[in-house]
Amino acid sequence: MNKTNPIAEIIAIGDEILIGQTVNTNSAWIGQRMSEAGIPVKRAIVISDDPTEIAASLEEALQRADIVLITGGLGPTRDDLTKNTLAQFFGSTLVRDDQVTQDILKLLASRNVPMIDLNLDQALVPNNCRVIRNANGTAPGMWFEKDQQVIVSMPGVPYEMKVMMDEQVIPALLSAFKVPAIVRKTIMTTGIPESKLAASIADWELSLPEGVSLAYLPSPGIVKLRLSVSGENQMKLRQLINNLADQLVTIIPEAVFGYDDLTLEEVVGVLLRERKQTVATAESCTGGTLASLITRVPGSSDYYKGSIVAYANEIKTTFLKVPGEMIQAHGAVSCEVVERMATNIRDIFAGDYAVAISGIAGPAGGTTDKPVGTTWIGVASDDGVKSACYQMGEHRERTIHKAALAGLNLLRLSILKDARG
Amino acid sequence: MNKTNPIAEIIAIGDEILIGQTVNTNSAWIGQRMSEAGIPVKRAIVISDDPTEIAASLEEALQRADIVLITGGLGPTRDDLTKNTLAQFFGSTLVRDDQVTQDILKLLASRNVPMIDLNLDQALVPNNCRVIRNANGTAPGMWFEKDQQVIVSMPGVPYEMKVMMDEQVIPALLSAFKVPAIVRKTIMTTGIPESKLAASIADWELSLPEGVSLAYLPSPGIVKLRLSVSGENQMKLRQLINNLADQLVTIIPEAVFGYDDLTLEEVVGVLLRERKQTVATAESCTGGTLASLITRVPGSSDYYKGSIVAYANEIKTTFLKVPGEMIQAHGAVSCEVVERMATNIRDIFAGDYAVAISGIAGPAGGTTDKPVGTTWIGVASDDGVKSACYQMGEHRERTIHKAALAGLNLLRLSILKDARG
Repeated sequence: MNKTNPIAEIIAIGDEILIGQTVNTNSAWIGQRMSEAGIPVKRAIVISDDPTEIAASLEEALQRADIVLITGGLGPTRDDLTKNTLAQFFGSTLVRDDQVTQDILKLLASRNVPMIDLNLDQALVPNNCRVIRNANGTAPGMWFEKDQQVIVSMPGVPYEMKVMMDEQVIPALLSAFKVPAIVRKTIMTTGIPESKLAASIADWELSLPEGVSLAYLPSPGIVKLRLSVSGENQMKLRQLINNLADQLVTIIPEAVFGYDDLTLEEVVGVLLRERKQTVATAESCTGGTLASLITRVPGSSDYYKGSIVAYANEIKTTFLKVPGEMIQAHGAVSCEVVERMATNIRDIFAGDYAVAISGIAGPAGGTTDKPVGTTWIGVASDDGVKSACYQMGEHRERTIHKAALAGLNLLRLSILKDARG
Repeated sequence: MNKTNPIAEIIAIGDEILIGQTVNTNSAWIGQRMSEAGIPVKRAIVISDDPTEIAASLEEALQRADIVLITGGLGPTRDDLTKNTLAQFFGSTLVRDDQVTQDILKLLASRNVPMIDLNLDQALVPNNCRVIRNANGTAPGMWFEKDQQVIVSMPGVPYEMKVMMDEQVIPALLSAFKVPAIVRKTIMTTGIPESKLAASIADWELSLPEGVSLAYLPSPGIVKLRLSVSGENQMKLRQLINNLADQLVTIIPEAVFGYDDLTLEEVVGVLLRERKQTVATAESCTGGTLASLITRVPGSSDYYKGSIVAYANEIKTTFLKVPGEMIQAHGAVSCEVVERMATNIRDIFAGDYAVAISGIAGPAGGTTDKPVGTTWIGVASDDGVKSACYQMGEHRERTIHKAALAGLNLLRLSILKDARG
């Protein structure tokens, strides 16, 4: 086989997907991986666990695509169905595979699960397939070839399928078909809304060389910019993409916090660890979300002291020592209060840095002057305290999440500024 | 039209879904709603923004299904494509719809967005369709009928599509086709793993009347049990399902915390509000996640005081006043320390209840005696303090989330017990 520029289709088998009990994340993941590998997916289908449906949709897919990837329908209680359907489709018979038998026995033993006959039946595979071993489950994958086309059947359990795809299926597809090299780089940005970001980098975007494409991938508080290019020489493409990303950073230096799906909390962790410094937090409207983001990173106890979540105003006065008169005069959501919260929590918890957040998450609590979404964030350090006011919108959960990310970003910028200054 | 027991297919249009940039949650949501309405979805397809693909897949779907629901391909920059394709498919022409024109002008004005010609083009619709007005966007939906079949085209923006489906499309389908009544009830449980739960209710499950089905829907820390039945008389079915749910509660009274997707944090909020009581928290391994769950509920400031996130041990001693010798003797993850944390945070923040959590979220920090996942949770109230030890597993994020839910559940049980006692 040496077909160039193949196209693929995906068939996902499962009633639980059709009735929406399970969201079809498998097809999204496969679509992403295949597109990264340079093989476009042109159609993705979900069908029920039904032999007629499986055979009919496979038949149709093979009229359009070079590669058909099938997921699901291989569990211990229903594998005969899909496997028998595939064996019948190819006119082959089921035979016991010794390697798979051993894999199953070993896996069950390691999990202290007793063997049942159903499990051993999983070692039966059509005699025209190449087995794809499953390191994380009992159902093997199967690779079929027919008339220069490839059909792969994999279990629907995401963890089992993903390891098979990354370690076996994609490498095998790339050696069976001739596909162009593809190089991608994702630039992670925060602090600039998508539309404003697009305007800021419009000239650079227009000047991108032919063949280089740019995708905006926005999520609350974060916009990922993904550059991609395909061609012959992987090294030259990599160099081109790196140069373009460097140019981009010079245009929006403060907005770029990392590359390739690094998170903002990971970046902050790296900065603090490098400097052997620590941070403490004081939260009002975010109610612990900033703390939970920071502590999501393994090992964050090396640089994170803790937080006072001051949801009741009396906790702001009693424990964060914000004067009651200050809250009275300026409101709990104000520059004065948030700066005092930051300065005081830094002293109380003895951190090098401190972040404080106070805002109106809604739905209640908004006023004409301070509508729902108004959020003050302060960062205290050796250099004193800085603060900024944001408008996070009216959607409560989104406002909370965006405010926590903005707190992390203000902290990141303070650390970097201190390093430069 | 008066066809009985129709079946449906879904066609989602969009390159961004095929390459996995967007997960196809629309089709899952539609599948769920349609199945709840008694109309099974037999196939769901994703295709690219391409006229040939759209026409071909619609043609195929109409050979199998009575109803075809199409999402996507209706944005202001590409609507001509899908609409023209549909108009061509039905041999109709595009005409301007005055109602839609007015809707668009009104919507843009309310958002202070200037009109561009592209927006007005969205008021062009095929002259053989019935317009489905869009309350939340500029692209109208379209309802077509052909040979006793129904084809509906909707925008891909989830919020716009969902409102159209719930308010217009599903009611119209239920009057165009004859479908059986379906009644469902979801029983929310926590604190018992799925396999143990299944064993506890096995006799009840076996005794379910014919036609009543039970689905287990597990997620970390929560197992939903969904009962459903279909038939003629909606009221009788509702009564049957309610009786069966009541029976279930008598078998696992402590595990059931609510019905129909109510969350644990909402239930705790209702209990505290009813009693005009308050709660405070002290968190170590969960790092603010318990606080963030509680404060996700709008209005939680009525009953939530706040939290001390004591990530560093010194904060446990200095602010939560846990004696250093106690931590030395028993470890930070112990019955003694967590009970002291709960008692002290209750005093310090003056709450009626207090929850404290201390555990090993991993990946580091485990020992033979206390492996990763070991979590102590304590609840303090007027009646003193109670605590329990849990094993939450080795997956860091999951451990944290499960520990926070277990804290909420222990709080819920304490409140209920106090109410009874």
